Amino acid sequence: MAAANSNSNSNSNSNGNSKPKIVTGSAGYVLEDVPHLTDYIPHLPTYSNPLQDNPAYSVVKQYFVNVDDTVAQKIVVHKNSPRGTHFRRAGPRQRVYFESDAVHACIVTCGGLCPGLNTVIREIVCGLHHMYGVKKVLGIDGGYRGFYARNTVPLTPKVVNDIHKRGGTILGTSRGGHDKSKIVDSIQDRGINQVYIIGGDGTQKGASVIFEEIRRRGLKVAVAGIPKTIDNDIPVIDKSFGFDTAVEEAQRAINAAHVESESIENGIGVVKLMGRYSGFIAMHATLASRDVDCCLIPELPFYLEGPGGLFEYIEKRLKENGHMVLVIAEGAGQDLLSESIQSLDKQDASGNKLLQDVGLWISQKIKDHFSKQNKMVINLKYIDPTYMIRAIPSNASDNVYCTLLAQSAVHGAMAGYTGFTVGPVNGRHSYIPFYVTDY
Amino acid sequence: MAAANSNSNSNSNSNGNSKPKIVTGSAGYVLEDVPHLTDYIPHLPTYSNPLQDNPAYSVVKQYFVNVDDTVAQKIVVHKNSPRGTHFRRAGPRQRVYFESDAVHACIVTCGGLCPGLNTVIREIVCGLHHMYGVKKVLGIDGGYRGFYARNTVPLTPKVVNDIHKRGGTILGTSRGGHDKSKIVDSIQDRGINQVYIIGGDGTQKGASVIFEEIRRRGLKVAVAGIPKTIDNDIPVIDKSFGFDTAVEEAQRAINAAHVESESIENGIGVVKLMGRYSGFIAMHATLASRDVDCCLIPELPFYLEGPGGLFEYIEKRLKENGHMVLVIAEGAGQDLLSESIQSLDKQDASGNKLLQDVGLWISQKIKDHFSKQNKMVINLKYIDPTYMIRAIPSNASDNVYCTLLAQSAVHGAMAGYTGFTVGPVNGRHSYIPFYVTDY
Amino acid sequence: MAAANSNSNSNSNSNGNSKPKIVTGSAGYVLEDVPHLTDYIPHLPTYSNPLQDNPAYSVVKQYFVNVDDTVAQKIVVHKNSPRGTHFRRAGPRQRVYFESDAVHACIVTCGGLCPGLNTVIREIVCGLHHMYGVKKVLGIDGGYRGFYARNTVPLTPKVVNDIHKRGGTILGTSRGGHDKSKIVDSIQDRGINQVYIIGGDGTQKGASVIFEEIRRRGLKVAVAGIPKTIDNDIPVIDKSFGFDTAVEEAQRAINAAHVESESIENGIGVVKLMGRYSGFIAMHATLASRDVDCCLIPELPFYLEGPGGLFEYIEKRLKENGHMVLVIAEGAGQDLLSESIQSLDKQDASGNKLLQDVGLWISQKIKDHFSKQNKMVINLKYIDPTYMIRAIPSNASDNVYCTLLAQSAVHGAMAGYTGFTVGPVNGRHSYIPFYVTDY
Amino acid sequence: MAAANSNSNSNSNSNGNSKPKIVTGSAGYVLEDVPHLTDYIPHLPTYSNPLQDNPAYSVVKQYFVNVDDTVAQKIVVHKNSPRGTHFRRAGPRQRVYFESDAVHACIVTCGGLCPGLNTVIREIVCGLHHMYGVKKVLGIDGGYRGFYARNTVPLTPKVVNDIHKRGGTILGTSRGGHDKSKIVDSIQDRGINQVYIIGGDGTQKGASVIFEEIRRRGLKVAVAGIPKTIDNDIPVIDKSFGFDTAVEEAQRAINAAHVESESIENGIGVVKLMGRYSGFIAMHATLASRDVDCCLIPELPFYLEGPGGLFEYIEKRLKENGHMVLVIAEGAGQDLLSESIQSLDKQDASGNKLLQDVGLWISQKIKDHFSKQNKMVINLKYIDPTYMIRAIPSNASDNVYCTLLAQSAVHGAMAGYTGFTVGPVNGRHSYIPFYVTDY
Repeated sequence: MAAANSNSNSNSNSNGNSKPKIVTGSAGYVLEDVPHLTDYIPHLPTYSNPLQDNPAYSVVKQYFVNVDDTVAQKIVVHKNSPRGTHFRRAGPRQRVYFESDAVHACIVTCGGLCPGLNTVIREIVCGLHHMYGVKKVLGIDGGYRGFYARNTVPLTPKVVNDIHKRGGTILGTSRGGHDKSKIVDSIQDRGINQVYIIGGDGTQKGASVIFEEIRRRGLKVAVAGIPKTIDNDIPVIDKSFGFDTAVEEAQRAINAAHVESESIENGIGVVKLMGRYSGFIAMHATLASRDVDCCLIPELPFYLEGPGGLFEYIEKRLKENGHMVLVIAEGAGQDLLSESIQSLDKQDASGNKLLQDVGLWISQKIKDHFSKQNKMVINLKYIDPTYMIRAIPSNASDNVYCTLLAQSAVHGAMAGYTGFTVGPVNGRHSYIPFYVTDY
Repeated sequence: MAAANSNSNSNSNSNGNSKPKIVTGSAGYVLEDVPHLTDYIPHLPTYSNPLQDNPAYSVVKQYFVNVDDTVAQKIVVHKNSPRGTHFRRAGPRQRVYFESDAVHACIVTCGGLCPGLNTVIREIVCGLHHMYGVKKVLGIDGGYRGFYARNTVPLTPKVVNDIHKRGGTILGTSRGGHDKSKIVDSIQDRGINQVYIIGGDGTQKGASVIFEEIRRRGLKVAVAGIPKTIDNDIPVIDKSFGFDTAVEEAQRAINAAHVESESIENGIGVVKLMGRYSGFIAMHATLASRDVDCCLIPELPFYLEGPGGLFEYIEKRLKENGHMVLVIAEGAGQDLLSESIQSLDKQDASGNKLLQDVGLWISQKIKDHFSKQNKMVINLKYIDPTYMIRAIPSNASDNVYCTLLAQSAVHGAMAGYTGFTVGPVNGRHSYIPFYVTDY
Repeated sequence: MAAANSNSNSNSNSNGNSKPKIVTGSAGYVLEDVPHLTDYIPHLPTYSNPLQDNPAYSVVKQYFVNVDDTVAQKIVVHKNSPRGTHFRRAGPRQRVYFESDAVHACIVTCGGLCPGLNTVIREIVCGLHHMYGVKKVLGIDGGYRGFYARNTVPLTPKVVNDIHKRGGTILGTSRGGHDKSKIVDSIQDRGINQVYIIGGDGTQKGASVIFEEIRRRGLKVAVAGIPKTIDNDIPVIDKSFGFDTAVEEAQRAINAAHVESESIENGIGVVKLMGRYSGFIAMHATLASRDVDCCLIPELPFYLEGPGGLFEYIEKRLKENGHMVLVIAEGAGQDLLSESIQSLDKQDASGNKLLQDVGLWISQKIKDHFSKQNKMVINLKYIDPTYMIRAIPSNASDNVYCTLLAQSAVHGAMAGYTGFTVGPVNGRHSYIPFYVTDY
Repeated sequence: MAAANSNSNSNSNSNGNSKPKIVTGSAGYVLEDVPHLTDYIPHLPTYSNPLQDNPAYSVVKQYFVNVDDTVAQKIVVHKNSPRGTHFRRAGPRQRVYFESDAVHACIVTCGGLCPGLNTVIREIVCGLHHMYGVKKVLGIDGGYRGFYARNTVPLTPKVVNDIHKRGGTILGTSRGGHDKSKIVDSIQDRGINQVYIIGGDGTQKGASVIFEEIRRRGLKVAVAGIPKTIDNDIPVIDKSFGFDTAVEEAQRAINAAHVESESIENGIGVVKLMGRYSGFIAMHATLASRDVDCCLIPELPFYLEGPGGLFEYIEKRLKENGHMVLVIAEGAGQDLLSESIQSLDKQDASGNKLLQDVGLWISQKIKDHFSKQNKMVINLKYIDPTYMIRAIPSNASDNVYCTLLAQSAVHGAMAGYTGFTVGPVNGRHSYIPFYVTDY
């Protein structure tokens, strides 16, 4: 592991948060390295990677990742441009920092559902078991707060064998609940030394805090984050797991909206898709479908009335084509929506709450506009497929992707890396410090 | 055709509505016969059925339906019970009342979307063309009101070749708009002599009125109704087309609700399905899924509060099982819902209108109940797959079914029957007078 | 149960096979009744059906099947035609012949895979458990021969909870292996008193023999057969389970054949579908698809060469349309195929065996014909989706159907009927003596 | 366009094939550039890109690709490693070399079917039309040989509107047939100046030859290749279109094989997947499924008999687990297979030909082995889903991908590049010289 550490300039200090580990090279090369257990625990023994003795993986020997391998973030370059940021390449190392028998891993899933959660769980368990001979893996029940509870689920290859064919997460999930002291106490009490945390932005922030606390206490516990957001809005990483499945499944809703709108005079099909702060699902679903006339996303503001407004565009499309399909990301037009809600009579809580759904709101706005103006009789059909998309099992592409994420996390933790997130950068799986993907 | 008429007792009179044509037989046998062009137009010439000269259908010759064939409605019987009501069996007759060249047919689709509409259209066109050599078939654009408009769509086997693989209706649809005089004027003006009307309850009532007007005017125009209701709530007939497809597609929504509810503490998945006056889709989808804890349908009243109420049941299931799935037909609990709406502040039209959706309403009621009582934190996810179900193409089973419906209608009209609906009675396709299926 | 037995004329004799139980009534009414435990065990006590005390089924009370209810086989009738054959209606009876605690049921699945096997297993288990409070249900492992083995699978609602979402059979299956003495010994030894046998023609023959042996020994053991044939070739019964799913899934293969054939000059897509003695799947799949030019089934002989032969037809279609799709049932053209095989060189066993697959054989014949003649260059693509069809889970329609089959079987066995098969006759579930469906 | 050419060292000569255009930069930077019309036609006028005046694309203005943008092939690097090969980044340029009115494009599809062909066709047509205002696009019918035929298909956005929802290619396809002189004659005769060629390895070689001939004649005709291979075996490029869809669809076959094998004692499910020279589909389908015990690919040799052989492994898995699934790529074990075939009796052509299918061959070998040895009774089910996979429409992910490929090709041709292939390199779409992807 010497190579991993030698060039790091003062990357750790025993009190306070860890500083970024930056390594520089020729032609503007920069490596944003991830923490390693040896940063704060000196003289850790290393062991030969058990993969080399595993007949099933005999062919892998030659594929151990060179410890110097790094992945370039910037690949659109000019011939003399600087090389820029790089990340440590993910994959199995020749030396590991845990003995197989000594590993006691745990897995937790947090936040909303996303296709692929069960595949990631399965592949962490199977990766640890089949590649490294690790037998003790614990499932934490119901998100972070499951760390304080007594219930845990022992996870074996048999238990997880078929779970990748089911949606949801067999571990259950919840939001919030990250009391770092109680969680690290629980980790210590149970003797856990590898923590796999699958979740979104807030969850990864929590993972970072947990890592810092573990580091502060000087524990030999590797913390690996597997970033989860169906919205695909993580920086640096190519895409998040479940995104591909979500875009595929969204086609059903768009097709339905298209058929409904085509079958009636001035038919308007409105589909709301996920994406609180980003329009990736809406845009990709729109690009894949080719039946969408208008796609509204959080990144691009719009307005309703007047020239250049949405109503004008709708009217134009209906006159040209007789029908139209509108896709809206859940986070689009939030400014307009909050204005609308504020102006409503405060007394009727239930109805107003419903209107905070941007899809219901914009559908009502469009209906109101065309009925008030008596311009044209429209027929609007609103479809919200959100839960039908989130809850399906991951498709083949996401299954392969989740497998790589999980195995990369396992290789990283076994190799003593900690406080890292995994994910592909320009197609190559890498270890990325938590702060970089903090979105 | 003599046999069809001989036993009818005074079934027609030239002014006023036609009376039922009732034929009786031994052991309590009753035939509810359908009108025939010869009821009010005497001395119509007949022609040999062109099917017998068609090499492709040469094998069919022996399968011409015996004119005396009727289908029993009651098949659960006791050994000495009376035989009860029968209907005329559908199928090709040896003699027809139209020459192929003289047929000018039209097709119209009315009301909401339903899987299979395009298959019915396709098979009427192809049935007329391939079986009877009929070349002139017209599509009426956008429902009944399309009769007054200029736009019509010439329908040939080539035009309709692939339409059964698409959802919706290529003819477009609309609600209402049946001015009988204008429609019959249009039929006369265009020289149409076979009218195929695909639509629901109201549409079939309209078809009945159009038939009476045609009969009153003494026109040689056959009127055939193909009953359409995704809800499957037609009397006498075994099932309506699209129902099977709808139940299949509803599984996706129930599966999603099940996965969402299972992945979180006290998760409740609520799915609203079609069924304004009947719970067939909700019940069949529930039976097919085996993941539903509670299914609310219009046929069975329920209440929310107190012992035996819905809230009590939900609480019990959550305590037992940790999660639950509730399916509700759109017409369930309408009494409770209208009370709720009336008590709301009248000023906020938009929000209240949303609450008229029974799914949104009951979801809000459940949330309010559990948050008010502070009894338990619940996590409710509401799914409304209605438009995603209506808009899909029909599955294989419905394709076969729609083909039989369409071909039965064509055989009936060619054989001079009129004022009839087609559909299977205990598995055998039959011609049924309009008034019988008036639901 | 008096009513069930009173009119039977000498239906049982203690040695030799049981005779048919025939009951006659007015207007030519005939009931082909099923055996009952009381036929050979007098003075059996009866018990009140526990359904009446079950709050969840409280609404069912009024729906107990009247013991006199029978279902007519013939429903296309003439006004004075005789009433013909009837069967005993399936469903719950007010009195049962087993106490819940005393029931020890077993389930066995035999023969090839068929969508819905797991649903039938699930619903027998859940039906016995939830409706009748039966706790002891045993799964026999791997078909009839599992009766002699030690391995059995205890079946509870929890064990079978999700199995209807999986293809295949959790019990495993095999062909043959019905040594009646050993099987009935095993039944006696284990104290089993309800035997549910799911399988095809041979299996049901085996069930019949097992029933006769049980009857000969005078055991209080009810034997219920659930007929299984994906080919849908059972007499009397409307359709077999899994058929609907199979027809649906076959569409994929036909679509692929259609696309392949359309994309190339003189493209021919050949699809082989199941159906050893009947062409139901091939015909329904053809009807549902509308893309098939030619469908060959066992019921209709054909020949290859000369006028009116298959090659002539193919050439004609290719000249007209540029491409064609041919569907062939596995049992079609067996006479031609055996001629072909016999004329082959006997030495190369492997290659010849392959040609016994009618799809490979006809594809080769077509290729040989057109290449020998140099008439036209054709592009033939052969698709055999058999295992991909058999192995999928049942669709919604089959799930509902399997549930009714299983529950009918359970109601029948609890009511003391034995030696019967269940299935819908003209849409109504009935109990049918084994010999009637012997196909 | 100066930047594109300035650094190129002697990249063209008027007789013989064009040499590679190589540009070098700092730190080992190398650009493998693509040809440009100005390489052999001096003084070509340029035009402002019409995208900048298109209101719908107004937002695009800032996103014109910088002419100096290149994409790095090597992204796993060491801190001081050389930069290596780069390719010109794809995308719209500020200046174009064709006036919209003057463009006359043609599209041809060659070789076997692949999901996404129709999407690529659609998006070339729509891209040319909507982005560049090009009205004249011609479809060449039935592959390269369609260039000599009279039939062509005028392609407009309306004609191609729904084709991406269908499998196959609306243009038809064929193999071979590239007579460069006749094709270039045809291109000249018809006045075509942009040629889009979609096809595999042989097709792209043909495209290269056509480009050289066009270059030799000094024609202002841009030739763009869109590489197609469902097997995903193209160098440099991340993946080929249709691959993702194929892997997804292959899951059905593997699932079926798994269910079949699990339901019977010593069940073996064998699935053959595409991949003549590479095992990508087989491997990815295996990774996505997690139900496969053994995956045989062309890249890794294997043998049947003896220790370490396939039969030994099968026996071991059956003894351990009772069933197994084997996936084999069509090109695996070709050496063993040709030995086998040669040793067969030459007389029975038909049977032997069948055995050239590696899936049928290995299935027979396994059956023979276990029956000869009498070691164990096995139950082998063989599934060949090839045509069912090739013929389906592309999934959402491939639709987006095909759209980008098509639009990149259009931008490239409009910008005057020629003799190039398009495809993503590490996620960024690039223009790549034909010789680089020559596989």
